[in-house]
Amino acid sequence: MDASTLPARERILVTAHELFYRDGLRATGIDRIIAESGVAKLTFYRHFSSKDELIRTFLDYRHERWMAWFVDALGRHGAVSGGGLAPLGDAMAEWFNDPAFRGCAFINAVAEVGGSLAGVVQIAQGHKQDMLQVIADLLPSSPNQASMAGAAALAVDGAIVRAQMDGVEAALTGLRQLLGALESSSPGAGFSAICA
Amino acid sequence: MDASTLPARERILVTAHELFYRDGLRATGIDRIIAESGVAKLTFYRHFSSKDELIRTFLDYRHERWMAWFVDALGRHGAVSGGGLAPLGDAMAEWFNDPAFRGCAFINAVAEVGGSLAGVVQIAQGHKQDMLQVIADLLPSSPNQASMAGAAALAVDGAIVRAQMDGVEAALTGLRQLLGALESSSPGAGFSAICA
Repeated sequence: MDASTLPARERILVTAHELFYRDGLRATGIDRIIAESGVAKLTFYRHFSSKDELIRTFLDYRHERWMAWFVDALGRHGAVSGGGLAPLGDAMAEWFNDPAFRGCAFINAVAEVGGSLAGVVQIAQGHKQDMLQVIADLLPSSPNQASMAGAAALAVDGAIVRAQMDGVEAALTGLRQLLGALESSSPGAGFSAICA
Repeated sequence: MDASTLPARERILVTAHELFYRDGLRATGIDRIIAESGVAKLTFYRHFSSKDELIRTFLDYRHERWMAWFVDALGRHGAVSGGGLAPLGDAMAEWFNDPAFRGCAFINAVAEVGGSLAGVVQIAQGHKQDMLQVIADLLPSSPNQASMAGAAALAVDGAIVRAQMDGVEAALTGLRQLLGALESSSPGAGFSAICA
């Protein structure tokens, strides 16, 4: 990563993104971020009043980057509105096989700091909500589109933590099996009343 | 929690379990565990040579406690060998609604310290493997019993992180929908070749 040509604020953010995501929020000290981003301490504190503020800004930045990647990856794997969930498995396969993959930054943040850092849970919820909307758009319009999207998003989260812990192939096999079962359950109006 | 009547080692472990699970591994200092368990510093270091060793011992202890609870809860919710996955949703409902619920200690540990603390990922994998075996036993014997159990375990992990982040009801609805779809996909021999 060569961030040296970026303005100071972006340089800090790119460095924080790399270190927070790779090593965790508490394990990454401000001094290390300052040193690796090559800015002066005063410059850092002009942009971020505290580590907590930097963490929240990192999560917002991560959210934008990840969502842009997600929509792009789905498109590259053939996603169309209402066309079904198969591209979701392919996009996850691409992500899980990235050498930098370390799970979902938002799941990790909630696991690590939970409610002890104001705003983190809310940012994570917003992230999952946006992910859910994109997944819902893959499904055909129906009374149970929303509940199916919720179930599919849950399967994605399970696959993410499984890939992080146990290896990518088992996670992808399980994810594709769940998505396939969900789509072939293809509930009509009668079933949707149960799931609503 | 009244641990004051336990022997020193158990007192440390019960205290560490409560604090590590509630507040996280890095956020919980050794001095706090020593103070809250009411043992002398020397006593602590006679039992645990380092915080890392205490973390690994906590995870082993958590594994035993959680597995015992899991098997017991499934039984209370009507689980029988080969009888299906419905009790899994009920057991998770019981856990997610526990006021002390803070997600899966093993998912959280991997999210927080990952490979930076020797042994943690392996302990977490062992935990998920044992959970998988218990889930597999709920399914009727078939060529795809193992792959279905893997998919069901993945759905459980997704529900755990979703309940931790977003609220219990959405997590349980999604989990039950996935488990129901998985069971009704009820793959015969032809389907199992795809999932193997």
